[in-house]
Amino acid sequence: MSRWKPDAAGRLIKAAITLFAEQGYEETTVAEIAERAGLTKRTFFRYFSDKREVLFSGSGELERLWLEAMAGAPAKATPLAVVTAGLDPVAELFIERHDFARIRARIIEANPELKERELIKLQTLTGAIKAALIERGVSATAAILAAQSGVTVFHVAFTNWVHQDDPTAFRRMMGESLQELRAVIAS
Amino acid sequence: MSRWKPDAAGRLIKAAITLFAEQGYEETTVAEIAERAGLTKRTFFRYFSDKREVLFSGSGELERLWLEAMAGAPAKATPLAVVTAGLDPVAELFIERHDFARIRARIIEANPELKERELIKLQTLTGAIKAALIERGVSATAAILAAQSGVTVFHVAFTNWVHQDDPTAFRRMMGESLQELRAVIAS
Repeated sequence: MSRWKPDAAGRLIKAAITLFAEQGYEETTVAEIAERAGLTKRTFFRYFSDKREVLFSGSGELERLWLEAMAGAPAKATPLAVVTAGLDPVAELFIERHDFARIRARIIEANPELKERELIKLQTLTGAIKAALIERGVSATAAILAAQSGVTVFHVAFTNWVHQDDPTAFRRMMGESLQELRAVIAS
Repeated sequence: MSRWKPDAAGRLIKAAITLFAEQGYEETTVAEIAERAGLTKRTFFRYFSDKREVLFSGSGELERLWLEAMAGAPAKATPLAVVTAGLDPVAELFIERHDFARIRARIIEANPELKERELIKLQTLTGAIKAALIERGVSATAAILAAQSGVTVFHVAFTNWVHQDDPTAFRRMMGESLQELRAVIAS
């Protein structure tokens, strides 16, 4: 189920991000988000534990998609090749979320507690990728190094992507970020 | 200043880690730590805001030492070479702290909130290394990739080091971790 179809969760996310952009994250209440979406507070709390969770609602989908792409990688692929198999589908997923991602990035950058939460979510993603590599028979050390490298490549590209105007640039930016990591490490 | 006992902080750290090992982290109070060190609670709070801070008291020193080693790297060194200049001095610093590090690692691994704090401290270190690279004229993207890689190499080696018995093995483990990262990325 995509959160971005006109279902309740998708409408709540859209309403929330619109209000965050219009009047600020801190200033927006759950009641206002529900009202803007034409839904009740009760419905909001069926999908999100609080307004903060709206900002992180995509992380489960990101992880599922990334792990799915890894599962489809050839058995003999190197650990890094397995991890980076996730980059293109993830870039694809994000293209239509550029506006959301940009507003979200501004909110998170201005709020230390949200920055910490973002960091923890990335660490959870790294842990899941590492576990999937170990499952494939990769050593623990190679698994953590490949997982961390992949998530760093993703995050560097993501940060660059939200700070420019072209939604379709994410895929290219992932490639550039990976290439730059190779250059940095090979040097 | 005259009322301050010599190396009060060191004595408090030693007392704290002894008590954490003997009776558990959760079960140990600041009053007990101060008593074991032959000092008052008031003296404890001159050095640490709470008992948790005892576990993270080394992070400032780690960062200073790492940045100092980077500052001593040749002007023409590659970003990764600048970052990894910090690994040997950091390994040296930790050798005599193996017992502390091992007890500390067990406590942190068992406590999600402390794990988050550890993660944030590592992120702060990464940010400081990145900033030092940018100061040297490295591009922002290369700086974050090199900084993140260096801290990952350190952290992987650190985790391996606290899970084995030889305090002097840290330096070698740093080298192995760096070599394995190179192999993973080159593959």
